[in-house]
Amino acid sequence: MSDTDLLRDEAQYCSFGDTVHYIDPPKIFSRCEGSYLYDDAGKAYLDLQMWYSAVNFGYANKRLNDALHRQIDTLPQLACQYLHKEKIELATAIAKRVEKTWGTKGRVHFNVGGAQAIEDSLKIVRNASGGKSLMFAFEGGYHGRTLGASAITSSYRYRRRYGHFGDRAQFVPFPYCYRCPYGKKREDCGLHCVDQFARLFDTEYYGVWDPKDGSSEYAAFYVEAIQGTGGYVIPPPGYFEKLKQVLEARKILLVDDEIQMGFYRAGKFWALENFNVKPDIIVFGKAVTNGLNPIAGLWAREELINPQIFPPGSTHSTFSSNPLGTAVALEAVKMMEEDDYETMTREKGAYFLEGIKDLKKRHKIVGDVDGLGMALRIEITAEDRFTPDKAMTDKIVDIAMAGDLDANGKKVGLVLDIGGYWKNVITLAPSLTISYEEMDLAFNLLDQLFTRATRG
Amino acid sequence: MSDTDLLRDEAQYCSFGDTVHYIDPPKIFSRCEGSYLYDDAGKAYLDLQMWYSAVNFGYANKRLNDALHRQIDTLPQLACQYLHKEKIELATAIAKRVEKTWGTKGRVHFNVGGAQAIEDSLKIVRNASGGKSLMFAFEGGYHGRTLGASAITSSYRYRRRYGHFGDRAQFVPFPYCYRCPYGKKREDCGLHCVDQFARLFDTEYYGVWDPKDGSSEYAAFYVEAIQGTGGYVIPPPGYFEKLKQVLEARKILLVDDEIQMGFYRAGKFWALENFNVKPDIIVFGKAVTNGLNPIAGLWAREELINPQIFPPGSTHSTFSSNPLGTAVALEAVKMMEEDDYETMTREKGAYFLEGIKDLKKRHKIVGDVDGLGMALRIEITAEDRFTPDKAMTDKIVDIAMAGDLDANGKKVGLVLDIGGYWKNVITLAPSLTISYEEMDLAFNLLDQLFTRATRG
Amino acid sequence: MSDTDLLRDEAQYCSFGDTVHYIDPPKIFSRCEGSYLYDDAGKAYLDLQMWYSAVNFGYANKRLNDALHRQIDTLPQLACQYLHKEKIELATAIAKRVEKTWGTKGRVHFNVGGAQAIEDSLKIVRNASGGKSLMFAFEGGYHGRTLGASAITSSYRYRRRYGHFGDRAQFVPFPYCYRCPYGKKREDCGLHCVDQFARLFDTEYYGVWDPKDGSSEYAAFYVEAIQGTGGYVIPPPGYFEKLKQVLEARKILLVDDEIQMGFYRAGKFWALENFNVKPDIIVFGKAVTNGLNPIAGLWAREELINPQIFPPGSTHSTFSSNPLGTAVALEAVKMMEEDDYETMTREKGAYFLEGIKDLKKRHKIVGDVDGLGMALRIEITAEDRFTPDKAMTDKIVDIAMAGDLDANGKKVGLVLDIGGYWKNVITLAPSLTISYEEMDLAFNLLDQLFTRATRG
Amino acid sequence: MSDTDLLRDEAQYCSFGDTVHYIDPPKIFSRCEGSYLYDDAGKAYLDLQMWYSAVNFGYANKRLNDALHRQIDTLPQLACQYLHKEKIELATAIAKRVEKTWGTKGRVHFNVGGAQAIEDSLKIVRNASGGKSLMFAFEGGYHGRTLGASAITSSYRYRRRYGHFGDRAQFVPFPYCYRCPYGKKREDCGLHCVDQFARLFDTEYYGVWDPKDGSSEYAAFYVEAIQGTGGYVIPPPGYFEKLKQVLEARKILLVDDEIQMGFYRAGKFWALENFNVKPDIIVFGKAVTNGLNPIAGLWAREELINPQIFPPGSTHSTFSSNPLGTAVALEAVKMMEEDDYETMTREKGAYFLEGIKDLKKRHKIVGDVDGLGMALRIEITAEDRFTPDKAMTDKIVDIAMAGDLDANGKKVGLVLDIGGYWKNVITLAPSLTISYEEMDLAFNLLDQLFTRATRG
Repeated sequence: MSDTDLLRDEAQYCSFGDTVHYIDPPKIFSRCEGSYLYDDAGKAYLDLQMWYSAVNFGYANKRLNDALHRQIDTLPQLACQYLHKEKIELATAIAKRVEKTWGTKGRVHFNVGGAQAIEDSLKIVRNASGGKSLMFAFEGGYHGRTLGASAITSSYRYRRRYGHFGDRAQFVPFPYCYRCPYGKKREDCGLHCVDQFARLFDTEYYGVWDPKDGSSEYAAFYVEAIQGTGGYVIPPPGYFEKLKQVLEARKILLVDDEIQMGFYRAGKFWALENFNVKPDIIVFGKAVTNGLNPIAGLWAREELINPQIFPPGSTHSTFSSNPLGTAVALEAVKMMEEDDYETMTREKGAYFLEGIKDLKKRHKIVGDVDGLGMALRIEITAEDRFTPDKAMTDKIVDIAMAGDLDANGKKVGLVLDIGGYWKNVITLAPSLTISYEEMDLAFNLLDQLFTRATRG
Repeated sequence: MSDTDLLRDEAQYCSFGDTVHYIDPPKIFSRCEGSYLYDDAGKAYLDLQMWYSAVNFGYANKRLNDALHRQIDTLPQLACQYLHKEKIELATAIAKRVEKTWGTKGRVHFNVGGAQAIEDSLKIVRNASGGKSLMFAFEGGYHGRTLGASAITSSYRYRRRYGHFGDRAQFVPFPYCYRCPYGKKREDCGLHCVDQFARLFDTEYYGVWDPKDGSSEYAAFYVEAIQGTGGYVIPPPGYFEKLKQVLEARKILLVDDEIQMGFYRAGKFWALENFNVKPDIIVFGKAVTNGLNPIAGLWAREELINPQIFPPGSTHSTFSSNPLGTAVALEAVKMMEEDDYETMTREKGAYFLEGIKDLKKRHKIVGDVDGLGMALRIEITAEDRFTPDKAMTDKIVDIAMAGDLDANGKKVGLVLDIGGYWKNVITLAPSLTISYEEMDLAFNLLDQLFTRATRG
Repeated sequence: MSDTDLLRDEAQYCSFGDTVHYIDPPKIFSRCEGSYLYDDAGKAYLDLQMWYSAVNFGYANKRLNDALHRQIDTLPQLACQYLHKEKIELATAIAKRVEKTWGTKGRVHFNVGGAQAIEDSLKIVRNASGGKSLMFAFEGGYHGRTLGASAITSSYRYRRRYGHFGDRAQFVPFPYCYRCPYGKKREDCGLHCVDQFARLFDTEYYGVWDPKDGSSEYAAFYVEAIQGTGGYVIPPPGYFEKLKQVLEARKILLVDDEIQMGFYRAGKFWALENFNVKPDIIVFGKAVTNGLNPIAGLWAREELINPQIFPPGSTHSTFSSNPLGTAVALEAVKMMEEDDYETMTREKGAYFLEGIKDLKKRHKIVGDVDGLGMALRIEITAEDRFTPDKAMTDKIVDIAMAGDLDANGKKVGLVLDIGGYWKNVITLAPSLTISYEEMDLAFNLLDQLFTRATRG
Repeated sequence: MSDTDLLRDEAQYCSFGDTVHYIDPPKIFSRCEGSYLYDDAGKAYLDLQMWYSAVNFGYANKRLNDALHRQIDTLPQLACQYLHKEKIELATAIAKRVEKTWGTKGRVHFNVGGAQAIEDSLKIVRNASGGKSLMFAFEGGYHGRTLGASAITSSYRYRRRYGHFGDRAQFVPFPYCYRCPYGKKREDCGLHCVDQFARLFDTEYYGVWDPKDGSSEYAAFYVEAIQGTGGYVIPPPGYFEKLKQVLEARKILLVDDEIQMGFYRAGKFWALENFNVKPDIIVFGKAVTNGLNPIAGLWAREELINPQIFPPGSTHSTFSSNPLGTAVALEAVKMMEEDDYETMTREKGAYFLEGIKDLKKRHKIVGDVDGLGMALRIEITAEDRFTPDKAMTDKIVDIAMAGDLDANGKKVGLVLDIGGYWKNVITLAPSLTISYEEMDLAFNLLDQLFTRATRG
């Protein structure tokens, strides 16, 4: 069937509501490998977003694909009320890893899809707090699109069509220092933003705290250590440490959403390891199977998740610990133990950051670049290097996808993803296995792109 | 690693909250094929529940496993903001199938996990109704375990630990004629249960209808044509037709949850086809990939889901139309088009129903048996053939799982699943590909089981 | 200012939303006394509804008016954070009365307006149940029009314009035997309606009960012993006794809304005394001040309201125990202690019921009459004596208000109120002090009215 | 009955939950006149809080008491589905007054108790916004104690015991410049606080605004022009003007709660008149009847409240426009038209402010004094004139109530009320009719009080 025929059927029979159609017409791909997607005509597209960080270990990673092939041939299916060894080994590996990192005992719990893992974390929080259903979360934060996850995800656009959300979070400004919500400068702000949050607990009249009872109306604070959809914004040093002190004093749980930033995207197994605080709950997904299977899950402190407090049947999902997913995830976690991803991501991340800093020097539309590990950002602005320029950003993406850039004489495309509060941030999540040559090519292609986009 | 070591690690590092631990210790399996699960010692367990109907086409079905292998080797990963042909072909095939069956145009929308598809359906309903968030659903109904799905799933046990559910459904008695909620007899009840539901709309004072405005407080009615978790209860003829008339008169949408009963479990592609009514929305999952990569989704009438009313980005999930899942599902749908599952399930279903009717004659603890297609039920009761006997049911399951039944001289186990309002119903979902020999063996093993269980 | 000028200003400057404009144009009154309202022209209107039972002791009752005059001249105002003796004596009198009737110790709590007292009762229930906010209430029930009270008041019309009600009650059919919701006959129904309610607790799958935890999703059942707005429907003997057994077994509180039926309207101090059950909370209002001051309040069992569990500041309202109101209410309660209202209302009620039974014999549009104490009902129907006839009922009210009926040669009007699920019930709440002559006149006027209304 | 006996009964039969028991034992009063309360022993207490501003025109004001006496003797009772002239004249007078002040046409709507009027305003807002139920409100704001009003009242203490509040407001810092929430100085802050609020609408990711649809998740902003319970905090010039610009740009309604500050408390008929902005809805109560019969209500713009959009029966309350209340309120409004309260309150307010400024000079525990009209504040602090000192404040109140202060040789008491976020603000609401001699006495008594309190 030709692309034309496919697009005709797609226009007629597919919901547009489940993501596509951001570009028109949508692009059809038919093969992937390493850092590249290929269309039917065989044209290559260098991918700098890797399925929003779900494919950290490269498309069609041989080791992980092989693990999946093997599992298909042994135990492809099993109801989750029975056990299989890959599930147990995977949970054990993750729990031991957390214990080694932070010295905290806990357990691992599975589901499919990050949003369902978020829902499970909400259940753990609600249960542990005696039924409280209000949460703090960040402006710009993103935790999924179920109704429950939408209630703690900042964008009102995600809720608008769907009536009332009785559990809507209270959204707290994220420390987005390039555009400080309080108009401060990082050098001398004294982390004013945390002070503003801490202020809420000074009296009962700020609405969230009853000093007579020593209890908060809000049960947990949901954070992404680095915002994903929010535009790969990296918080300043000290921020999370100071925030955690407030939360501990007020007995508010810290839930760390690592769905997008976990598994070395930000240079550490968990992104939060960069910031010197211990989470109470960690939610993970995406890259744990390198995009091969939607397995997701969470780790929680023993006090919150032990079988007495959170007994069998507290949650459930048919595919929660499906054997195909656990087998791939187990192989991925082993791979992360065996290879030195920390050094790899630090070095490649630094190289990539240099590359885009250089681009910033040469292109006035680049307002800001930043990066931590292999999570990097290019913020597209007017020439004042501040005013967000969404139209220019869209233009850049369209040219990138047109597949007409020059790679040593070959026509190639570039796969980019856009995030940020004004949809003007190119959020870069290249494969952790990207080569230095591919990075150089990326800089070259971005350079072409920015030049073409600004030409008129 | 030995099972002992695995169970020790499991007890320490795994959450019990995500389903297991209904039997103690939980059973570990390591291989599956056809109608059988195998443990590490190689012992076979004949499976009569097939992962709660997620593996309709048999464990390790060669055609479907091959489809998965092939996709891994071509396009294992692709972000859902781009297209791949399997997604389009799958959506097209399902939408055309619905159009052929019911003459209704519509579109298909994907997500991972049945609960997320239910959440998406809630979004479609809320959006189409101007933001209404109250739904009708059945007593005994089950639609998943996200917070949103728990609100429309009857059991209070699933909500109890989690505080307030502001969108809790109004639960309507299901026509469970063996235990009629109104104490009527099917022969002469005149479908009193629908009359009771219809009565709610007679005046504004029954709480759900404003005659001045001609509008209902409730936007949709969520149904399973045959209740799954509720105990494979089959409604009487005429029930859904009469119900649908009420719903249409009151402009209330009918959402048909086919997650467990779809794909020929009940003898038809959709279980609701048995009952002569058209749904407004169909939600599917589980067996569409035969339990390989989780894919779920929904079909909705064009008026509810067209891109003007439900535009791009209305929902989203990283893995919503993941290529591994769509490839398997596409192959499964093709297989269902090519083979005559309707005849197959009718004939095998009739044979199976005969077998369990025969068991009922010989065992006083069998209060009721029933079946539609390959969805069958055995209700375990006291010898009065009515009083539910959960303890006996548990005993039966334990013996079945002990693996000590005799199959022509070989020790085997039997994999059973329990449902029903009193947890006293053996819900049978054998592989649609089960052989007549395997069915005969099943009858024999059940006979042994009931004999042993009642012996003392 | 003439009535014309007043009506012109009213049409321009008054909200219609706060009740008036059921008849067009609305009627202006300027004086009241005994059982009569008078318009500016001096025409008398015999009142058979007495401000929906707020003026049980007759318009301009001298003893109560005098109490108000006296209080104005001593302590007309006092902030409720200080005490005055009338408040204490009033609370003491009511609490002792309840203790004498039912042997239960408790306390009295004040607010202004019945709806605010209902809100306070919701707070007591929520607090006592650890924060549960779901309630059972009756179809046809009415508990006020604040958002919280609207959530437990059955009519959807009262909620429709105001978005989502996350605490909406589950409405249970009231035992309206003339129109049994289950199509039963009172003679042999065995109180099937209570069995239907009790059934909800048989398994967790009926949605309201967790047998593992022995707890209900619903914290209390709000009842009117006789429905007010619902049409003065009187439940059958035994109903409340059987219902209370279910509630006690499930630890669900019984909240008795006596706002309309308390203070001898139904022949007893509290209407619920007719039905042989003890309430956990009683809410009162209206007639406690004979309509002179909006004081309302509640009595609750000591366990629910003692200062340890419900401490100072748990609720508050500027006018909650305003001295004008408490002084009148104290006088009213004393009057009820001193005079034998029980005998008076039994005898006059019986006489009135006879009178309307006689009217039923003579008028085919009278489908049903009934009464308990001085709460009586005439249900207007088609000639089949069953089909509700709202149009005829409206016509009757219009003629009554036209003031053109003949009272021994004088033109008079009749003040009637309409209730019932179909707005076809004349709900009669004559003054408890009405004379036998006035009752005879009432029968005569109603006879004229029904004759005229049916004449064409 | 002696005070001892009364207090014994009170301890046994009265709920403590409806306000009293802030001092132990509570104080019993038995007479009031002018600016004084009197206890049974005849001792006088100069009242500087006048029932939290409900008795603006002095205790036992003759003109208003006479109006009440007269109404008792003519039309003391009338169901609100009929009209009486006082209601119409009162509504007309208020609506015309608003029209004269702000040039806006609108209507007046009644209920009893400020909280019920707030509930009615929520209904108007929800209805006008298509069912939106989320509101902005101020930190420190107070709008009543029904469940609906508690959801928009800041203090979490008022909600803590009562489970989930699905309509909880988003609370915005009030411009409390003495303790600027952002640590700014009034001189050069540029109204940073409004900028912070305006920032929320810059992108969809701040959680309240969808730029694609141009709509806000929040339907209205509830304000007190001067916070009452919050501690009589007076906002800086320009604040409300700038805020209103934001609200208008975002189509968010401004609801002006004048329950405590209306009717010349703050020197104008409505307190908001001081700040040069037009409200969409005004809610009033308390002083409109000078603390005699509870009447409250609201004025709304014609577009929000006309009978087409807000038809008969949209709200209801038995006592909503009870004739005793409307008669007194009508007389009060006439009195406010006839006498020059604006000049009177400006002059006396200035004199009173001078008096407490003088006290500040002499007492180090007075951190801040301020006033607008006759709404004044004394903030009690440590000697740094900043750290709130609640213990000292409590001590002051206890001494004041002990009745042992010296007034020209006579022992008298002083009635004070405490507000503020730290419960350290003496909120002064003297009678508008207080004499200059009484004010001088007040200064003298406060001076004695502060001296005694700090003596040890």
